[in-house]
Amino acid sequence: MAKELKNLTKRSEDYSKWYNELVVKADLAEQAAVRGCMTIKPYGYSIWEKIQEELDRRFKATGVVNAYFPLLIPKSFFGKEAAHVEGFAKECAVVTHYRLKVDEQSGQIVVDPAAKLDEEYIIRPTSETIIWNTFRNWIHSYRDLPIVVNQWCNVMRWEMRTRIFLRTSEFLWQEGHTAHATGEEADARARQMLKVYGDFVEGFMAIPVVRGVKSETERFAGALNTYTIEAMMQDGKALQSGTSHFLGQNFGKAFDVQFLDKDNKPQYAWGSSFGVSTRLMGALIMTHGDDNGLVLPPKLAPIQVAIVPIFKSKDDLDKIEARLQPVIEGLRTKGISVKLDNDDKKRPGFKFADYELKGIPVRLAIGSRDLEGNTIEVMRRDTLEKMTMSLDGIVDRIEALLEDIQRGCFTKAKAFRDAHVYECNSYSEFKERIGDGGFYLCPWDGTAETEAKIKEETQATIRCIPYAYSQENLGDDMVSGKPAKYRALIARAY
Amino acid sequence: MAKELKNLTKRSEDYSKWYNELVVKADLAEQAAVRGCMTIKPYGYSIWEKIQEELDRRFKATGVVNAYFPLLIPKSFFGKEAAHVEGFAKECAVVTHYRLKVDEQSGQIVVDPAAKLDEEYIIRPTSETIIWNTFRNWIHSYRDLPIVVNQWCNVMRWEMRTRIFLRTSEFLWQEGHTAHATGEEADARARQMLKVYGDFVEGFMAIPVVRGVKSETERFAGALNTYTIEAMMQDGKALQSGTSHFLGQNFGKAFDVQFLDKDNKPQYAWGSSFGVSTRLMGALIMTHGDDNGLVLPPKLAPIQVAIVPIFKSKDDLDKIEARLQPVIEGLRTKGISVKLDNDDKKRPGFKFADYELKGIPVRLAIGSRDLEGNTIEVMRRDTLEKMTMSLDGIVDRIEALLEDIQRGCFTKAKAFRDAHVYECNSYSEFKERIGDGGFYLCPWDGTAETEAKIKEETQATIRCIPYAYSQENLGDDMVSGKPAKYRALIARAY
Repeated sequence: MAKELKNLTKRSEDYSKWYNELVVKADLAEQAAVRGCMTIKPYGYSIWEKIQEELDRRFKATGVVNAYFPLLIPKSFFGKEAAHVEGFAKECAVVTHYRLKVDEQSGQIVVDPAAKLDEEYIIRPTSETIIWNTFRNWIHSYRDLPIVVNQWCNVMRWEMRTRIFLRTSEFLWQEGHTAHATGEEADARARQMLKVYGDFVEGFMAIPVVRGVKSETERFAGALNTYTIEAMMQDGKALQSGTSHFLGQNFGKAFDVQFLDKDNKPQYAWGSSFGVSTRLMGALIMTHGDDNGLVLPPKLAPIQVAIVPIFKSKDDLDKIEARLQPVIEGLRTKGISVKLDNDDKKRPGFKFADYELKGIPVRLAIGSRDLEGNTIEVMRRDTLEKMTMSLDGIVDRIEALLEDIQRGCFTKAKAFRDAHVYECNSYSEFKERIGDGGFYLCPWDGTAETEAKIKEETQATIRCIPYAYSQENLGDDMVSGKPAKYRALIARAY
Repeated sequence: MAKELKNLTKRSEDYSKWYNELVVKADLAEQAAVRGCMTIKPYGYSIWEKIQEELDRRFKATGVVNAYFPLLIPKSFFGKEAAHVEGFAKECAVVTHYRLKVDEQSGQIVVDPAAKLDEEYIIRPTSETIIWNTFRNWIHSYRDLPIVVNQWCNVMRWEMRTRIFLRTSEFLWQEGHTAHATGEEADARARQMLKVYGDFVEGFMAIPVVRGVKSETERFAGALNTYTIEAMMQDGKALQSGTSHFLGQNFGKAFDVQFLDKDNKPQYAWGSSFGVSTRLMGALIMTHGDDNGLVLPPKLAPIQVAIVPIFKSKDDLDKIEARLQPVIEGLRTKGISVKLDNDDKKRPGFKFADYELKGIPVRLAIGSRDLEGNTIEVMRRDTLEKMTMSLDGIVDRIEALLEDIQRGCFTKAKAFRDAHVYECNSYSEFKERIGDGGFYLCPWDGTAETEAKIKEETQATIRCIPYAYSQENLGDDMVSGKPAKYRALIARAY
């Protein structure tokens, strides 16, 4: 079994296969019996819970409150915002009936044709429409604004090509929706939430991101501006990890959400929305994972320290456990999650491989000889480095080690990312190199034509106009030769 | 506006109307634009979050792990367990298509007939079928058992008559699903979770419940036994507040979930399931609410203490806030949630009424005169009692007061409940009195015929065979006159 665990395809052999295998072998998730949908297994879900908990805390610190809106959206709602319908009302699950019955002839369960709905419902692909329809009843005066609500929920988009966590028909996410008295305020909220996302993904998930603004083509359907954080996976491809949108008055007008301003004049409400999803699980796996399995930054790890006692007899185990007791208590007092794995049905070698596969940041092993020498073996998952440490002061050292691993995960990922960001002013060079992955900073004339040409010819897309790179002295667009308006970040993406 | 807030129908006038009004006026939830569905508003949702958080903690302490299974269930799955299909596959939302398109003639958005699914999907009304289908791949050996998973999610049942929180087409809940090597263990888990529910609802929500076992008729579809907690609302009607089910091998057999036992022999897995839902919000409102609005037991209250400063000038307010600062910090240090409401656009009278309506357990008011006297006005929501307290030692006194309110809510509800539980051995007396509400402990012959007759003639149902009441010296069934097998708890119910 330990051998089977180790039997993971190497990233260098087939990155895509490595990912698919790791998701299943590390017990994160699996394909469900429903087309394009996944089952998130307990271990995977416990990581998602960590993400949720921390994000929810950060949201609430900015004044976000949670609520819950219906799963189903009347079909007619999608027609109300012109751009939105194009983007979302197409590939989606449609509820047409509300009853099954047993067919008298065949004895089979069939849809009851008498129970056809007058108007079909769509399972929400995103909730702007139903929420703005609700806002109409909540907003009458400027005193009712701003509204800053969020829901944690499931959504559904009927994707043709699916991949666990990255693109599934059903996925879990949070969607924040806000309404404001002014456009400045709505736009500021969208930017603020992008900052929350960026800080969270870098500070908690140890994934470096590029912050920027989307091109018009890549904007959220119905938005005036979409802000994004883009992470680089180990194959050099981009993964959009979170977006926020300035919606202008588009939904306010589409759903007739008006309020009386301070001068008692009617105005349409301004909006923003923002979301991250279980896609972040994919970013996590593909940023930190290695050929031995998952690597979890400590802040995300449901178990931060696994302890494997090596024992031949019950007496040995008792002695080891007695010595470990204060260590475990000391760690827990510091808020560190510890698992003591004294299961005698599994061999230590199996346990080591399993904890590696699952990405547990620190693994301790201790046998009778260690006990005599007052030492313990410490392995850090990120570097696979083994150390022998004295049991004296071990609690403080492990605490420091966890902090070091958290930093190390980010530093390593950032070094990789930075080494694969290139300035590129030549389209022929771009076409030559894009197959190797990486982020390319290229002069762009700002037109959708150029953008479409790049996408068609290279399968790469403009990920964003990045904030962090200079937008001066751009020269000419590498494709059209016209004067460039932006330095765009271009990459192939998940 | 304060007047409008107060304009709540009295319970004695129309209990049902009082409930409907209170749900909306206290900002808990409202009817959505989707038939039979609700929007849970931020204030209502913040109470639901308190329920979730505490229950989740208690579940995990018993070894429950969370996971996520698909929203959609293939239609054919429902046919596999005979009793289950009867109970659940009838009134449900059916997904038949996966695409919309714009109709070229009308320009309207229509369902694309070309995108018809080969097999329809049902939006989960409960997830036993899809989860047991998944268990088949998870369970091979007795070493894989037990499995104790739970999910927090939305479910949908196409209810004809709906009422916010009590019976809606979509609702939020948790559903736990477990698999075991023996029937004893599965049954013990079902009983254990009922104990968790009972302890939680009484200890945290301050709602007294009767624990017991359901009659065969009232069992969960597919279960061998259903355990229940039944609460009494202020109109004397019962509200089933949580159930757990011993499923025997029914789903193990239906979905062919077999494992090799210690003797290497194949066995079907044994199961249990358990759930509570946003119905608990209804129980909360109808147990504790009064003619002034919601009454929240402190453990459930998102805001436990609201402080209203009474001031005429900015200078007054500054002085009051300065004096309150250490009080607020002291309360927060004790983990008590405090809101200082210094909004000068609303009058104190409005705030008082609003906090009463929203059920905030303790409301403090303090003006310049109080400051001179070093006192503060304290109102407890449960009794509406007003007290003047010294500011010295106020933090400890408020902490004690919150504990007293928590106890008081339970004591009051239990006294009401106990005063409305009657032993009744005569069917004519039962028929006369059932209209007044209350729980009736009646001798029952154990037959479905008698049960059906009672339901038909009185709209009352056997809520459970209660554990806490003597099952000896029962005499004869009050309806059939045959020897009674049980003393059943009979009541009209939500």
